[in-house]
Amino acid sequence: MNHPSTPAIAVHGGAGSLDDSGTSGLGPDAPREAGVGRAASAAWELLRRGGSALDAVVLAASLLEDDPTFNAGTGATLTSAGHVELDASLMDGATLGAGAVACVKDVKNPILLARAVLERSPHLLIVADGASAFAREMGIPAWPNERLVIPQQRARFDASAGVKPTTVGGGTIGAVARDRNGHVAAATSTGGTFLKRPGRVGDSPIIGAGTYADDRLAAVSSTGHGEPIIRVTLARLVADLVGAGRSPGEAAAEGIRILGARVAGQGGVIVVGPSGDPGFAFNTPAMARAWSDGSGNIRTAL
Amino acid sequence: MNHPSTPAIAVHGGAGSLDDSGTSGLGPDAPREAGVGRAASAAWELLRRGGSALDAVVLAASLLEDDPTFNAGTGATLTSAGHVELDASLMDGATLGAGAVACVKDVKNPILLARAVLERSPHLLIVADGASAFAREMGIPAWPNERLVIPQQRARFDASAGVKPTTVGGGTIGAVARDRNGHVAAATSTGGTFLKRPGRVGDSPIIGAGTYADDRLAAVSSTGHGEPIIRVTLARLVADLVGAGRSPGEAAAEGIRILGARVAGQGGVIVVGPSGDPGFAFNTPAMARAWSDGSGNIRTAL
Repeated sequence: MNHPSTPAIAVHGGAGSLDDSGTSGLGPDAPREAGVGRAASAAWELLRRGGSALDAVVLAASLLEDDPTFNAGTGATLTSAGHVELDASLMDGATLGAGAVACVKDVKNPILLARAVLERSPHLLIVADGASAFAREMGIPAWPNERLVIPQQRARFDASAGVKPTTVGGGTIGAVARDRNGHVAAATSTGGTFLKRPGRVGDSPIIGAGTYADDRLAAVSSTGHGEPIIRVTLARLVADLVGAGRSPGEAAAEGIRILGARVAGQGGVIVVGPSGDPGFAFNTPAMARAWSDGSGNIRTAL
Repeated sequence: MNHPSTPAIAVHGGAGSLDDSGTSGLGPDAPREAGVGRAASAAWELLRRGGSALDAVVLAASLLEDDPTFNAGTGATLTSAGHVELDASLMDGATLGAGAVACVKDVKNPILLARAVLERSPHLLIVADGASAFAREMGIPAWPNERLVIPQQRARFDASAGVKPTTVGGGTIGAVARDRNGHVAAATSTGGTFLKRPGRVGDSPIIGAGTYADDRLAAVSSTGHGEPIIRVTLARLVADLVGAGRSPGEAAAEGIRILGARVAGQGGVIVVGPSGDPGFAFNTPAMARAWSDGSGNIRTAL
């Protein structure tokens, strides 16, 4: 059990396969473990200095978006049309405020645009060209789609003729945090599934599915096959289980059990409860993750 | 209490103001009450003949989309850019299958497109231009945006210079049903809030917020100010309350109480539980609604 005033951070780099070759599109394992560790360390340092849970999850998510190892921001998977479309959301457990964007093609850090939706618009979710227009109004510069595409993802796309689209959005990233004031927050960002149809939106930008945070319950970020995750409202489900008295680890495990049992879904979740204890569960072979232990050390696992 | 083999239908025509002048954009009251009654009658007849809950809610929603009285399909409110953008979703409680579209500009019946997403794509939610492209592939013809705009909505837009955008999406439509086999389904469709920013998406196409259906819980359709509804995952919340033993009416009332208390949200819900009993609640002045009683008579109220 964490001390009440000890902050907590947990991040994930997507549920998927163990794949040291990187041929799955998830990227090799070692950089993934290092990447989630770096993001968690930076966010933990911010929390340790008194920063808010919302600032911490946005920092972690933006670092993971910029890390080409992950399927979010730079390095995202390509759609069936050969370009990148990005989705992201965040939620502040103190206020239940949330912001999200989906199907965004020209923004380097969609999590920062989602934050602008939360803080500087009357809306919660803005999609497609409307999200680009909002970004420009907010002073977020246009970022060419080609600059989001890394050579490995382009090569994977070029080799995909006749390949069936994947259904597991490996490499989605997310972060959950509790700050010294006891507030929790969650953030999630993704490029979605490989070879998705343009316009397809998964769970990551959907409040209640990919992301949920409520100081009375918990903060949760999901990863995996988006459609089943939406059908069971996975993030809300796991948060409610913490609210009903389960530990974050038990709630995560039960949420993933329900995901598999009721809708044959594959994925994972990270959770931080009001106590600051983290929880993780996944029914895929691996989920890159990092978290702060009660002493403030950052631990990582695949 | 309905007999177990008696089907049940409930529809809403949006939470909002009582307004016999029609100047709110909701349209005058009498046509709204008549419109929800007609949709409920048609869906009830389908259920009575052994049709499925999913077919019934799609029929009711498509009739309400075609009725210019309501803010969905033909007759939708205009965005700040002066055009129509439509959102819709549906969910099948028997399978937890769901389909949704958002920010669609060129389809007459978005609920039919949402059904195609459910039944004929591997995805759950498709938005904007990608949704239009999918519609064409499905044989759903392009419908000019101007044909979705009725003179009353154009006049309301033309008179709106300097007017603050509304936050309550009055006139959203929805339907919930239980069929003779005990399966439930829900559908919701909207034009969103008046003068919304292009690309803004509210709760209607969000599974868990605007729409939820699970045979083990209930079927729910929400209406009102979309952003707060998403923040409390209203449809899932109300369905869970039925699952926890509340009657549909109690669950609806408690969901709307939480919507108001936690996020200052204004709106309404309709619910049908596994027993077939309907429930309604709203914290706006009115919500046009119609439902079948245990004898199969259609009742209406504002």
